[in-house]
Amino acid sequence: MKLWKKDYSLDTRIEKFTVGNDHILDLDLLEFDCKASRAHARMLNAIGVLTEDDLSSLMAGIDEILELHERDEFTIREQDEDCHTAIENFLTEKCGDAGKKIHTGRSRNDQVLTAIRLFEKAQIQEIGELLDALGEALDRVCARFGKIEMPGYTHMQRAMPTDVKMWMGSFRAAVDDDKRLLARVVDMIDQCPLGTAAGFGVPVLDLDREMTSKELGFARVMENPMYAQMSRGKFEAIIIGACSSIMFDLNKLASDLTMYNMREFGLVTLPDKICTGSSIMPQKRNPDVLELIRAKYHMVLGEEFKVKSLISNLISGYNRDIQLTKEPLFTAIETTKSCLDITAFVLDGMTIDEEACKAALTDELYATEKAYKLVKRGVPFREAYRIAANTDAYKKATRSPGDK
Amino acid sequence: MKLWKKDYSLDTRIEKFTVGNDHILDLDLLEFDCKASRAHARMLNAIGVLTEDDLSSLMAGIDEILELHERDEFTIREQDEDCHTAIENFLTEKCGDAGKKIHTGRSRNDQVLTAIRLFEKAQIQEIGELLDALGEALDRVCARFGKIEMPGYTHMQRAMPTDVKMWMGSFRAAVDDDKRLLARVVDMIDQCPLGTAAGFGVPVLDLDREMTSKELGFARVMENPMYAQMSRGKFEAIIIGACSSIMFDLNKLASDLTMYNMREFGLVTLPDKICTGSSIMPQKRNPDVLELIRAKYHMVLGEEFKVKSLISNLISGYNRDIQLTKEPLFTAIETTKSCLDITAFVLDGMTIDEEACKAALTDELYATEKAYKLVKRGVPFREAYRIAANTDAYKKATRSPGDK
Amino acid sequence: MKLWKKDYSLDTRIEKFTVGNDHILDLDLLEFDCKASRAHARMLNAIGVLTEDDLSSLMAGIDEILELHERDEFTIREQDEDCHTAIENFLTEKCGDAGKKIHTGRSRNDQVLTAIRLFEKAQIQEIGELLDALGEALDRVCARFGKIEMPGYTHMQRAMPTDVKMWMGSFRAAVDDDKRLLARVVDMIDQCPLGTAAGFGVPVLDLDREMTSKELGFARVMENPMYAQMSRGKFEAIIIGACSSIMFDLNKLASDLTMYNMREFGLVTLPDKICTGSSIMPQKRNPDVLELIRAKYHMVLGEEFKVKSLISNLISGYNRDIQLTKEPLFTAIETTKSCLDITAFVLDGMTIDEEACKAALTDELYATEKAYKLVKRGVPFREAYRIAANTDAYKKATRSPGDK
Amino acid sequence: MKLWKKDYSLDTRIEKFTVGNDHILDLDLLEFDCKASRAHARMLNAIGVLTEDDLSSLMAGIDEILELHERDEFTIREQDEDCHTAIENFLTEKCGDAGKKIHTGRSRNDQVLTAIRLFEKAQIQEIGELLDALGEALDRVCARFGKIEMPGYTHMQRAMPTDVKMWMGSFRAAVDDDKRLLARVVDMIDQCPLGTAAGFGVPVLDLDREMTSKELGFARVMENPMYAQMSRGKFEAIIIGACSSIMFDLNKLASDLTMYNMREFGLVTLPDKICTGSSIMPQKRNPDVLELIRAKYHMVLGEEFKVKSLISNLISGYNRDIQLTKEPLFTAIETTKSCLDITAFVLDGMTIDEEACKAALTDELYATEKAYKLVKRGVPFREAYRIAANTDAYKKATRSPGDK
Repeated sequence: MKLWKKDYSLDTRIEKFTVGNDHILDLDLLEFDCKASRAHARMLNAIGVLTEDDLSSLMAGIDEILELHERDEFTIREQDEDCHTAIENFLTEKCGDAGKKIHTGRSRNDQVLTAIRLFEKAQIQEIGELLDALGEALDRVCARFGKIEMPGYTHMQRAMPTDVKMWMGSFRAAVDDDKRLLARVVDMIDQCPLGTAAGFGVPVLDLDREMTSKELGFARVMENPMYAQMSRGKFEAIIIGACSSIMFDLNKLASDLTMYNMREFGLVTLPDKICTGSSIMPQKRNPDVLELIRAKYHMVLGEEFKVKSLISNLISGYNRDIQLTKEPLFTAIETTKSCLDITAFVLDGMTIDEEACKAALTDELYATEKAYKLVKRGVPFREAYRIAANTDAYKKATRSPGDK
Repeated sequence: MKLWKKDYSLDTRIEKFTVGNDHILDLDLLEFDCKASRAHARMLNAIGVLTEDDLSSLMAGIDEILELHERDEFTIREQDEDCHTAIENFLTEKCGDAGKKIHTGRSRNDQVLTAIRLFEKAQIQEIGELLDALGEALDRVCARFGKIEMPGYTHMQRAMPTDVKMWMGSFRAAVDDDKRLLARVVDMIDQCPLGTAAGFGVPVLDLDREMTSKELGFARVMENPMYAQMSRGKFEAIIIGACSSIMFDLNKLASDLTMYNMREFGLVTLPDKICTGSSIMPQKRNPDVLELIRAKYHMVLGEEFKVKSLISNLISGYNRDIQLTKEPLFTAIETTKSCLDITAFVLDGMTIDEEACKAALTDELYATEKAYKLVKRGVPFREAYRIAANTDAYKKATRSPGDK
Repeated sequence: MKLWKKDYSLDTRIEKFTVGNDHILDLDLLEFDCKASRAHARMLNAIGVLTEDDLSSLMAGIDEILELHERDEFTIREQDEDCHTAIENFLTEKCGDAGKKIHTGRSRNDQVLTAIRLFEKAQIQEIGELLDALGEALDRVCARFGKIEMPGYTHMQRAMPTDVKMWMGSFRAAVDDDKRLLARVVDMIDQCPLGTAAGFGVPVLDLDREMTSKELGFARVMENPMYAQMSRGKFEAIIIGACSSIMFDLNKLASDLTMYNMREFGLVTLPDKICTGSSIMPQKRNPDVLELIRAKYHMVLGEEFKVKSLISNLISGYNRDIQLTKEPLFTAIETTKSCLDITAFVLDGMTIDEEACKAALTDELYATEKAYKLVKRGVPFREAYRIAANTDAYKKATRSPGDK
Repeated sequence: MKLWKKDYSLDTRIEKFTVGNDHILDLDLLEFDCKASRAHARMLNAIGVLTEDDLSSLMAGIDEILELHERDEFTIREQDEDCHTAIENFLTEKCGDAGKKIHTGRSRNDQVLTAIRLFEKAQIQEIGELLDALGEALDRVCARFGKIEMPGYTHMQRAMPTDVKMWMGSFRAAVDDDKRLLARVVDMIDQCPLGTAAGFGVPVLDLDREMTSKELGFARVMENPMYAQMSRGKFEAIIIGACSSIMFDLNKLASDLTMYNMREFGLVTLPDKICTGSSIMPQKRNPDVLELIRAKYHMVLGEEFKVKSLISNLISGYNRDIQLTKEPLFTAIETTKSCLDITAFVLDGMTIDEEACKAALTDELYATEKAYKLVKRGVPFREAYRIAANTDAYKKATRSPGDK
């Protein structure tokens, strides 16, 4: 039964359309709603709305839900709409009046917000760990191949010499910056919305919002209830934005590896076990995994723009539109996590071909160095540059005094 | 077994990552691949690659797949990757050597392209029918309420009088234009890619591409094999673009209805059966369905930009990235269809409140009419405009000769 | 003076903010507004609102504007807001009462719509001509180098042999499809909005909308005035969508050329005169022009997204938001035109290196051909495929009867 | 003359196409490049590349540029390409050999990066100040009208009572969060790229990068030269992302105000001086400024998408594509600044209509409060909710013991 069920019946077509797939997505939110429901119940007990018996009955009910969930036996029925309703319905059935009291002082709006925000914090934590793991995989590449010199490209043309250490190091630095970015995102969203109810606070009752916020591990209470609603979508956009920043790093790394793995370059070798074949060309060993990592950046970008576009042109207060930020959020996070994971795996499998790198270090890459050597001899840079661009002039300029 | 399976084994993590959920999505493509496989087999028979026995064995095999599929009993295993492989594997098992010959003269690339294009044509057909149904629903609203006058808004401010007929008629015109748009999209994509193989045609064999194209109901053969690959993504972007054009109409209609349904307007009444409630506010009857239609425009937009962004900066020839256009395409089409359907349903349920419309037709809406009446009396428009903006001046200007 | 100027004064900061740069952009619309104003005046004369004297006075005034404009001497002052106001103000000053009558039966809304639509039709015509020119440039590359064989790539890996004719031909086919796409876009937008006024038609007066539509060369009258408003943004999105489809072709061509021009490939040679240098690396000859063509696809995509996002979640009737579709439209068109033009120029300058192409046609590219040769000998394709993937097996399978 | 000018001449069409409008945009970067050039020169002197005379000559030259710029007399000619070249050319002309030495140890790549990053830091500072000013304007609205009660909306329907303080407070909280967001963005980008040259560092010479970084006020040196190149685009995307987060707040505020200003609501009154009129409807007073603020969110979103899309699928090292991030960055920042400024101005001008607010506080808004009063009497919330939804049941439930 739905939380808001009154006397008229919602047409089944409308119901199917409006419920969408929340009853599937929400399995990922269940543990967080349970956590928040527990904190909420304890607070209701502390302010006298729930008796001790109510509380222990609810705690037992929530434990049961979590146990069922652990065994994949707690299902959210389509008619329950979402995990929040499923949980309340379960508690009402199991705990009698105590179940009917659990929704006191909260609305589904802040209940959803709280569960999602706890979920987000946990996910960002996981992404952070995967970034660390990727950083370590990059370090391992450096340890194995760091000293190998290779061409650096600008305008997709050989430009100057670089080495594997600088190349991999650039991604290491990107990963470190993204770790910082994530820390800042957490810092921003770490506000407890529980108790903001439908976006205008709770009349009559005197909730202890500090208590729930602290129990749930939030850094601070989100004071303004209307801002709590406004933050839905705004915060999700920021989180997905951080995901797309990470995915950009992976997109570039995959672009590098795909190209350097081409026969024309041969700088990078991928082991057979990560390559796929062709249904018609027997000789192919394709780097599908890299192409997909590259492509998935765009998928995350699409999710980001869904959210940023749909939250626009809407007045204050909850609008149902915002519910549709959930799937883009989940998809963006899941995509980012799986790409981080698989990229680290690819890095551990690949090798750098030292011979090919050496062969690619052709003379013209050293033109800048030549120019700077002239600078050391006192030639102004602009002249040195023009001399280095011209082989004959260069020979003349670098002739030792005794040369003819 | 995969079509390209050779002697080395693909790491299971890579496999899981690269397969994605094609094995689920592809259930929608199965019938189209069967259709194309049939046409391909007949052609191979006609050019002497398949014997009569081969052909009848394959036809029986394909029939069996379709029967299983009808009973939801044909599953695409994750290790089969996609429906194309599942079909070939099934045929190889059932038909022996004939099964091993079915892939002659095609690649998975053109096989996928052909199945998707047939799917797209069928889907566009369905969208067209849903547009027709929506058009009829709009006509029914006109038939019921068309004569009711109501305010027209500009800058979200009452501007001039209009009526339900003109209002609904504007969406009718949009629907008609979108029908035309769809017809043009079909006209563009109606090119048969079967026989382009991996994007460079088929050597040695002399395929009869006209024959398969005709049997599959395509308007023409897609001659250039490299263009066949290039069209993947390009065509999908155009199709999703048409979906977003349709969704724009629905977004505007939903925006109108949501606002006119507000208590402050009261011009539109939605029946209880299409409204949902609130978990905390007992009085609420929320137009969730309209809000979701509005929001889903942005979801389609996100899918459109995924495709348009991911097809960029890639060289000619198939790149695995392109595979990721499938889910956005499916999602955009499915979303558009369900929104068209539900919008027609809402239109049939809603009523226009004639009294509220009348009450909203306040005096200032007729200022333009006043000005034009002065124009009729010979006053230049710019002066008439200034007079109409000023009540006293207007009274003076419209005094009949005999007035004091 | 503004068309709507009444007795209160608009704050200068607000004025500056709201006017934006329309007074600059609108120089491109001026001739089209003059054309539409002429048709409108003739029609007003035909229905008796303007006298013959009024008409000839206005015609002379409009001629004068166009002459001034030709000499770049007609300026739209910031306080005039846009070209439409500037024209009316000029006519009022020059033609007295006739000037004050020109705005009869139209609003700035349909005036803007009409001028923009005429502009769009003219621009699409130009884009079509540039597509033709590009098609011819592609043909010239084929004529010069078409027979040269080169490797075709899938997954960015050498796959099968192709030739310059097929490669360039794929872009030729894309250009042809885009020409068709443009024709369809014109067909859709070719509706005359003049006379729809502020979006609710014109009361009292009986305009002859067929007359103006015909004079302006439109295929048909846009009947529904509210749809006229709704079409603003919707049509622009479709036009920019066509631009991004064209830009996609160029993006891919530029991606191909940039890569094939790399030293590692050497398939394509760009003349010095189209390359730029580096400020620090004397040896560089960079293909900036190709990189920018590639990048500009994304710029057009951004303009498309602006329009598609900003037209959402707005009720029927004109909203000022829509005014901001003008700059994205202009930018997208201008970018597309300049990229088409410069791409044709690059094609005429480049050469294909036959030697490098030949060297790149390594053995493994012929594995599919080998497999098909076995098929010709009666080996089922799947077996032929496995044999071709294995050199020893292949030798064995292709041994002539007499071989040992 | 271009920095990289060698012996061949760039075709004029290519030149026009590649230069774009950098020579105009770059006027905003000039002072920052001068600042960075000064720091660079001092460092070159410290490490012995420039003599004292060289240094003082260059310092005088740079001073002269800044003075000319202050008087709007320093122009960047189209043939100079950008401000960086214009500055070097000026210095070469004025300072002779010293001018030819200034480019030692840097490339245009790190020169551009450094100037842009200094520009970004300055702009973020300005945006922060405008956010403060907006916060204060919000506080002033609270001070004037904070106590007025008004309806809060969910699903665009009257839901529960709120007041101006909570409403405006929600934007105050958003502004505060965005201030935090900006601080984090600065913290991330505050890395000095000067000395990374073309993305692979400087050979031969031993630059003192700590020295320039400190003089320019950066928090730290950006160590990895390849990451410096990678950060271009990545950082811009993050900055524009922060702009779009701010613009989202303004979009929502403008959406609220536009609706509450409608005659149907009348909660908000805008002074005449910020409204515009209609060219055909004499009575109109349109809130164009609010509609444009609303719309400009989407413009910033489009700029964000441009950057995020164009930086994708490119290999490491500078690609010319990245140059096109400049205009989106400038546009997004400028748009955000002007919208922040004008929003504060609108807030100071508007009034809240206390009577209209009171009239809008209809009975049904208090249903939740009623339910909670029953909860206080001991009724479990779910029952209280059902009772409050039903007037008769509610009367019965709230009857005092003595009532009949």
